[in-house]
Amino acid sequence: MQTVKGTRDIMPQDMLIRKAVLEKLSSIAALYGFMPIDTPALESWKVLSAKGVGGEDVIKEAYKFKDKGGRMIGLRYEFTVSLARLVASNPDMNLPFKRYQTGKVWRYDDVSKGRYREFSQFDIDIVGSDSVMADSENISWAIDCLKALGFDNFQIRVNSRKVITSMAKYAGIDEGKMVDVFRVIDKLEKIGEKDVTKQLEQVIPKQSAKKILDFIKISGSNDKVIEKVEKIIKCEGLEEMKRLLSYVNDKSKVRIDLSLARGLDYYTGLVYEISAGKEIGSVGGGGRYDKLIGIFLKKDVPACGISFGLDRLIDVIKEKKLIVPKSSLKVFVSAVNDKVRKDALKIVGLLRENDISVDYDLRSRKLSKQFEYASSMGIPYVIIVGPKELEKKSVTLRDMNSGKEEMVKIDDLAKKF
Amino acid sequence: MQTVKGTRDIMPQDMLIRKAVLEKLSSIAALYGFMPIDTPALESWKVLSAKGVGGEDVIKEAYKFKDKGGRMIGLRYEFTVSLARLVASNPDMNLPFKRYQTGKVWRYDDVSKGRYREFSQFDIDIVGSDSVMADSENISWAIDCLKALGFDNFQIRVNSRKVITSMAKYAGIDEGKMVDVFRVIDKLEKIGEKDVTKQLEQVIPKQSAKKILDFIKISGSNDKVIEKVEKIIKCEGLEEMKRLLSYVNDKSKVRIDLSLARGLDYYTGLVYEISAGKEIGSVGGGGRYDKLIGIFLKKDVPACGISFGLDRLIDVIKEKKLIVPKSSLKVFVSAVNDKVRKDALKIVGLLRENDISVDYDLRSRKLSKQFEYASSMGIPYVIIVGPKELEKKSVTLRDMNSGKEEMVKIDDLAKKF
Repeated sequence: MQTVKGTRDIMPQDMLIRKAVLEKLSSIAALYGFMPIDTPALESWKVLSAKGVGGEDVIKEAYKFKDKGGRMIGLRYEFTVSLARLVASNPDMNLPFKRYQTGKVWRYDDVSKGRYREFSQFDIDIVGSDSVMADSENISWAIDCLKALGFDNFQIRVNSRKVITSMAKYAGIDEGKMVDVFRVIDKLEKIGEKDVTKQLEQVIPKQSAKKILDFIKISGSNDKVIEKVEKIIKCEGLEEMKRLLSYVNDKSKVRIDLSLARGLDYYTGLVYEISAGKEIGSVGGGGRYDKLIGIFLKKDVPACGISFGLDRLIDVIKEKKLIVPKSSLKVFVSAVNDKVRKDALKIVGLLRENDISVDYDLRSRKLSKQFEYASSMGIPYVIIVGPKELEKKSVTLRDMNSGKEEMVKIDDLAKKF
Repeated sequence: MQTVKGTRDIMPQDMLIRKAVLEKLSSIAALYGFMPIDTPALESWKVLSAKGVGGEDVIKEAYKFKDKGGRMIGLRYEFTVSLARLVASNPDMNLPFKRYQTGKVWRYDDVSKGRYREFSQFDIDIVGSDSVMADSENISWAIDCLKALGFDNFQIRVNSRKVITSMAKYAGIDEGKMVDVFRVIDKLEKIGEKDVTKQLEQVIPKQSAKKILDFIKISGSNDKVIEKVEKIIKCEGLEEMKRLLSYVNDKSKVRIDLSLARGLDYYTGLVYEISAGKEIGSVGGGGRYDKLIGIFLKKDVPACGISFGLDRLIDVIKEKKLIVPKSSLKVFVSAVNDKVRKDALKIVGLLRENDISVDYDLRSRKLSKQFEYASSMGIPYVIIVGPKELEKKSVTLRDMNSGKEEMVKIDDLAKKF
């Protein structure tokens, strides 16, 4: 009896790293004024599959089923759609609304190392601001998070759907084809230039495809890329990118990448992707989606956000040993026989009251076996409770690293740690 | 477009309470030596519906569906079954294994105030100890948690399936009927004596039903109840209850209740239920299940655990104002015009680097509107960045409570908070 394919158990050592990461991301989000919310894992299929939401690729991968009441239900495949639904059902909310959310999402995709069907994300989003300052908040937060987690060779790649659209218009591409163009361009890194060309040529004329491809391959420093683009087109998107670079907290970490499009249909402006280093690739991304909320509210509300894929991020942190999990267990209490059991339990309670993490023998093992257990759990101290010591209101304290033992008065115990 | 029936959004004010509760429960669990794990929300239906697991009532309520690969999948309806599966697939794990887990579970049940189909639990369990000390750990932890959360009129009701079984044998009931008897007894509080009698008489002889009913109605102080039971039967279960009362950290909070049976099939020994006060009722429960892991491992491993139903618990905390949510936002930074925008952003970054939670205007509103917003968000200070002040390397600091303003050097700002 195993876990379902694409899902997994997370054992304590890995869970301690995960908890540390979540704690970092959420406390930095709070520094930025983001507040936590939660939305259901189960969403109405009508919401998840609404036109303009997600897009056909992600909807194909979504889990859906009928509940016992005959409702068509989907498991959320990300948080942004649910956020849009939430905003639409709270039309009087104070804007801008800055929220963060973490939890599980589900996509039935191919399973490979580091890719699961049940996985976790951590998102921040700003609803109600059309300013590039909001995009800058998202990206600055991600930069602060990666620095706090100990990453160095990371980059936030940015592009703008407005720039790609301007370029596409210049290349003579029909407005209606844009979503398809975005989706194909986004696969450049994954499937390579040849296949992108082939797929582009299926939706747009050959000549246009070539123009697009030449354009997205423009590279160099941010200033150089901007200069080159300005020679071809002029557009609002480019001005926004310039502004973003002037607002962000560390522009050396931001790189313009004209081939970046992002896979989801709903993006309308700046898009961003978090590359954690050369061999690692993307650990998240996001962008601006000024039309998504309007799908549910019938009135557009500008918004943008960024999301970390937690599983990939944590895998890398583990590989690079950026966070080393440590049990907080300080003391193991051993009773030498059943008669002193209750006194031992009192000492356990006393220490815990003093915020000291304590475990004790629950299997009535011999003292030597208890030491072995404490040692295997990496517990640094063992307290041995015996009848003779108790007469002197004392216990024996053993330092598991040095093997040294000393008598300590019970009243002085808590101070020892 | 709304949330699916039985599910809900959790907004920031409620989420802050939820976070504080989770933080308390998990830090006390760590004091007790419990370590965090996670298991998938999606489990094989074979696991969730195995004989001896959960039981027909809960299995009837479980969500199940086929995934795109044709696998029969269920959404977990609790954590204990998944824990048993996990232990069975890690046969070499260091025992006892003390773990905690929190997350969502799903049951398609009637929806009412405080009862959802998607809800959250917080569980601790101890695998690999058959000692009552392990049950005592669970109950002591729950007592410490409720005290730390500010509850006073709570009680942990305890009983033992061994005691009910002994009583049932004495009343001439067939061993094979025990699971049915447990399930009916457990409804006493919910459906009343009359209906319990009726349902009991459907599975056991009338005379036996009467004996059982008289037995489970025995009441009084713990000592009195034990005395009365000892006059009727002698059994290991009763000895275990006595030992539990001697081990637990605060026995004044524990009350023997012979009518307690718990609804799940897999319990084998002590069972416990957390009553948070008279009008509130149960906020969780648990017990010993020494045969559950054996269903998956083919070798019995003793285990016991306790679970808080977080939604009910948090609703009560909110009603009783035991935790009052507070945003951590300290400062709102206002730029008086676009020219000082970049300087304002620098100040924002500077304060955040000093762990001060800062928000700023993302909507280019007038100063008065910005004050209104800061005030509506409960932010205590506003920093006004203007060109004249900047010349003196200063800003204006406004205390939103008193309305007082002062000039502060930018270099001295962080120290102010």
